[in-house]
Formats: sequence, structure tokens, C-alpha cells
Amino acid sequence: MKLTMNRNLFIQELQKVQRAISSKTTMPILTGVKIELSQKGLTLTGSNADISIETFLNVENEQAQMQIEKTGAIILQARFFSEVMRRLPEDDFTLEVVENNQVAITSGKANFMVNGLDADDYPHLPVIETANQIQIPVHVLNKLISETVFSVSQHESRPILTGVHFVLKNQVLLAVATDSHRLSQRKIPLENTDDQFDIVIPGKSLIELSRSYGDDEEAVISIRMMDNQVLFETQNMKFYSRLLEGTYPDTDRLIPTNFNTTIEFEVKKLLAAIDRASLLSHEGRNNIVRLHIADDGVILYGNSPEIGKVEESLSYTQVTGEPLDISFNPDYMKAALRAFGDTSIHIHFISAIRPFILEPSEGQGEFVQLITPVRTN
Amino acid sequence: MKLTMNRNLFIQELQKVQRAISSKTTMPILTGVKIELSQKGLTLTGSNADISIETFLNVENEQAQMQIEKTGAIILQARFFSEVMRRLPEDDFTLEVVENNQVAITSGKANFMVNGLDADDYPHLPVIETANQIQIPVHVLNKLISETVFSVSQHESRPILTGVHFVLKNQVLLAVATDSHRLSQRKIPLENTDDQFDIVIPGKSLIELSRSYGDDEEAVISIRMMDNQVLFETQNMKFYSRLLEGTYPDTDRLIPTNFNTTIEFEVKKLLAAIDRASLLSHEGRNNIVRLHIADDGVILYGNSPEIGKVEESLSYTQVTGEPLDISFNPDYMKAALRAFGDTSIHIHFISAIRPFILEPSEGQGEFVQLITPVRTN
Repeated sequence: MKLTMNRNLFIQELQKVQRAISSKTTMPILTGVKIELSQKGLTLTGSNADISIETFLNVENEQAQMQIEKTGAIILQARFFSEVMRRLPEDDFTLEVVENNQVAITSGKANFMVNGLDADDYPHLPVIETANQIQIPVHVLNKLISETVFSVSQHESRPILTGVHFVLKNQVLLAVATDSHRLSQRKIPLENTDDQFDIVIPGKSLIELSRSYGDDEEAVISIRMMDNQVLFETQNMKFYSRLLEGTYPDTDRLIPTNFNTTIEFEVKKLLAAIDRASLLSHEGRNNIVRLHIADDGVILYGNSPEIGKVEESLSYTQVTGEPLDISFNPDYMKAALRAFGDTSIHIHFISAIRPFILEPSEGQGEFVQLITPVRTN
Repeated sequence: MKLTMNRNLFIQELQKVQRAISSKTTMPILTGVKIELSQKGLTLTGSNADISIETFLNVENEQAQMQIEKTGAIILQARFFSEVMRRLPEDDFTLEVVENNQVAITSGKANFMVNGLDADDYPHLPVIETANQIQIPVHVLNKLISETVFSVSQHESRPILTGVHFVLKNQVLLAVATDSHRLSQRKIPLENTDDQFDIVIPGKSLIELSRSYGDDEEAVISIRMMDNQVLFETQNMKFYSRLLEGTYPDTDRLIPTNFNTTIEFEVKKLLAAIDRASLLSHEGRNNIVRLHIADDGVILYGNSPEIGKVEESLSYTQVTGEPLDISFNPDYMKAALRAFGDTSIHIHFISAIRPFILEPSEGQGEFVQLITPVRTN
């Protein structure tokens, strides 16, 4: 293998696959990046136990200025190799596999000779058939992830809850996440498919996925599924994730539909007030704030006996229904509010001890956040 | 005490004194900021075992929009108080000490009530007489610090070496730091003083000091000394540091003056090459790189048996004297080179086992870096 090309473009490709490469792994070869050179171009691969990323740079990409003198493949320790690449003196560099998997990296007067590993020893990526495939704009997928993934459980006691549940049925894609204290759910109509599936994707994979793809309005991503793997594919990148095994709990019945108190807020103002109140709750043992809804106003309270307290009369758009005193974890509320962006929402309550829900003021039913309150007596 | 003023300006003042406030301290009152209000303005104080910072904001500062309704003083837990200040909803805020050291902080509709501590319990700052005082431009002091402080020892086995040695004598200010493997020395002529002193200031204090004062070309700082304290003072800020006790070793005799090999480099190019070579040395056990100086060129080698090796033919301006093969810690070299900035330097060698020195190509004698090589056989 021998390649000369633009250094910055190579580094860009390397950074993409490095998301999948961990320096802590029980398989030493997975600390490496697989570099594969064909006459068509350059393929880089990184992988860990959960995700694999493969990128392709076409030889015809003019910016890359690729000169392919000899095709082949090699594995290089990814962290060290990327440190070397970033410090080379010139705009281009040459990578050449000499003998015994030794790799010469040259740029200007700097000559590195680095020990590589045999590319044949790298594990094979899963083969995923083209059946069972949907297409979705990248920015829609990223929004879906950011609206739900924060609600996955951080605890391995119920592994299935560490993932987001994706269900495609009747031309609607449903994404749900819950850690059993709160729940996030988004529905998206997908009219051009008659497929159906029911999978659970690890939350950590989804976070890396949304970091891997920018918010390019034009780009479309293909999603392909197998029994235990899912592949997200765009023109120049493949992102594989394992799926979580097991049955996701039925969450439909958790979301109430009849309420006794409803209040409309601007997200930005409410978020700022919750953030202030949480300063106090974070200092206390229980981390709860109290919301008091009455005819004469809506007041938020935070309290920590040792440090002090805060109270704030909240600005709201309108309130209907019965008075209410309810306590909840402000961090759950902050995360839910951030998922709405700068808009207006309704919060619907049943009572101080029943879960309450947040919905956008417009477009209800497609996006909902649910939070379980904390009983204080 | 009751004060209404611009929130951002208050936060700026608070950030300055927070440099001196640690949340880890054996004296709980030192986790607090002292807030003192007189008819002249607002004084904030933060302190730890090593440094104390006091800032003053004049009531006549128009941006501050200060309304002083009642003078007084209080201590508030600094970290929590600054979190509150940053999250208040409006551009201005009111701070009022009510009863039992409770402090009401209000801004818009947000009302905090925070437990404070009695200001009388705050330790007194050292009283420093105006005698024994020099004046020096802030940017000169900052340069002096950045040129030397990285060479102080990080180990407490010889505490005196964790500080920078400042000596004023014969109208020359000398600053020296050494960890016994390398040494940094800068001399500055100070023509307007007949004072003399000999003090050792902790390196950590100097780092905080240079962060506290920007690089304002106009500002002048007064330095005042007592037996165990030094005060750096500008118009609106006082920075106190304790001094290190003990006798600093005699470093004059350590700096050689006769050499057998001299080579001139551009700092930027040499630094980049050393940085590349250090990638390999950092992976090995010894962390050394080797410099080979001969008639046919100058070559830098880095090597790590497990990972690989690098060699680079170095660009230099000129070389004189005998051939030489010398090994050294590249991290010491990188730190020394960075202290010179983007300029040209001479490196003077005696032999492979004797310390070598770096000096600017112009203005020799005023600034020198010394590095002890590593014997490899």
C-alpha cells in the first residue's frame, strides 16, 4: 500500500471513524484504525463493541489530491497515528506499508516508521441485507434523537431501558425513551414505506450517531436492519450499531389523556426560572422544587435548609383548571424543556401524585414529555 | 448593607477574587467572598492559604450604576453565590443584608434568600507598609513570569524550588526558577530604584497573578514587600502572596559561559520538530530524544521500540564548533522554546553530559534557559 494525499482531508476522515474507537478495549486490534486503499479510493474503519464507523473518500475528490501508487490495507494504532498526522510539517504526506507491517509516514523532512498490524486480523463488519430499509432526512433523525435520548436509563439494572425504542407501523415512526421516572416520545409520519419494525438502539450509539452526521438539510440517511444490528448509511459513511435484546415495556398506557390543570408557558422563561430554583435544590438532599398554581398566580419554590431558598412568581401565558401544589426533580424538567427549543408549551396535570405531561402548544400528539412528580407527604 | 447595581459588572469583580477562593479549604469561611460596601464603593475579597485578592469598584463608575442605600459587609459562599448571580433574570440586581446575616438577592421576579456569615469573622489581610516598593509595567511582569515559572519544581521535597527567586540589586531585577534539571533566568534593568531585595514567590501564586492582570500595555503594577508577604497592586486590585521561607540555592555558578558547539535555530521550526519527536519518546520509558550534530547535517531522533521511530533532518540557520550527539527530555526543550516566542535562538553545548543553554540570537545575557542532558551510556 502506498498513498500520497492532502493531509487535512485525511485527518477529517480519521476524526469521523475515531468516534467508534476506544483506547479502553479488551481487543487490542480495536484500538486501531483500518486503512484500506483500492483503486476507487480510501476506506477507513473504526469499531468498538457497540458501534462501527466506515468512511469512504473517492479518488476523484479533487481536494484530496490522492496519488494511489499501490493498493492494500493496514491497521495503525488510532490515537498515536492521529497525533502524528496532526503534527506533520507539510500539507501533504505519504503513507507506505514497507515490510513486516511497518508503515513509513513521511511529510517534508519528517520520517516516521510506525509498527502496524495485519489488516486480515481486523474483525469483519456485519453484513446487512438491503431489505427492511427506510430513508429519512438526517436533520429529522438528529432532531428525533435529541428529543428522546436524554430520557434513557443510565443504569444497567434494566438494560433494555438504556436504549431508545423505535417502532415503525402504519406509516408512523415512533421513538420512545424512559428511565421509569420520565418518558420522551416523538412520532413522525413516514408515508413512503409499508415496512414495519420494532427495535431498541442503545442511547450511547444514538448520541455518537447524531454527532457523526451534521445537520445538512439536504442529506438523506438510509436505515437498514438485521436481527441484532442496524446500519445508518449516507453516501460516504456507514454507521453500525448493535441492537439491545429483549422486549421494551409497553409505554402507550403510561401517557395520560385527561387532566385537571393546564398551564401554558414560554419554554425559555420557564427554563431560566427552573434553572435558578435548581441551584437551591441541588444543594439539598432531595433535589426537588415545588410549583404552586393558584388563582392569584404561579410560584416556583426552591429550598435548601443550609444554604437558603428562592421563590419566583412565574410568567405564564394562560392557566385553566384546579389549583395545584406539585413537587418534581428540576433536572428532569430542564432536560424536557430543552427538547422543545424556543417555543410555547402546555403542561397538563392530573394531581400532585400523578405523572404530568409537556406538549408543544401547536402540533399536539406528535411530541410529548412525561415527568413523574415526587410525593412530599 | 443594601446595594442595587449592574449585574455584569458585579460578576466581573466577583470573577477576579474567585481566583483566590478554593472550595477545598480547612477554614470554611475562606470558601466565601467578603462583600464590603462603603460610601466610596464596593470592595470584594477572596483568600486562601497562599494568595488573597481584593478588588475595588468605585461608586463613580458609571457603568456600574451603583445605588448604595446602606453600607455594611457580609460573607457569602462564593461558588454558590456566583452561580446565583449568573442566573438572575435582569440586568440589575439588589443585594440586602436582612437579619441574622441572611441576604436577600432580588432581580426581576426572582427572590433568593441566602445564609451569609458575619464579616467580622473573616481573617484580616496582611498590613504591608509602603516602604520597599518597586513599580513595573504589567506586561513586563507577565512576560517575566511566563519566561520562568514553568521551570519551578512540582515536588514538595525541596519546597524552596517550587518558587521563583526574585533578586533586586544594582538596579537589575533578576528572576530565576529551577527544578534542578533545568533552569530559566531573566534579567530586567530597573533604573528608577535604589532598593534591593531577595525573595522567593510560590510559582502557583505567580501563575494566578499573571492570569489576574491582563496584558494592558499602559498599566503599571506596584510591588511591595514584607518579611513573609508580597503585594502586587494596581489601581483597582490588590494581589497578596505569601513568600517561601528558606535560602534559594546559588544558581549563578550553574550557567556555563564557554562552549564547544553552537547552533542557531528558528524557534518555531525547531519546536514543531521536537514536538513530533516527543510523540515517540512519550510512548517509551525514558522520554528522551537524540540530537545529532555533524558536518553533514543536524538530525533529530525519537524512538519507542513498541510503537516505532522518527527521524528528521532539521533546518538550522548556522552551526559552529565540534560534532555532537546529545540526548535530552523533549518536554523541557518544548517549554524552554515556547518561552522565546517566534524568534531566533542560539543553543550552546559543551558536551553530551554537560548542561546546555538557549539564548535569544539578539540580546544575549538578559534571558537564558538551561537544560541538563540525559546520559545514555
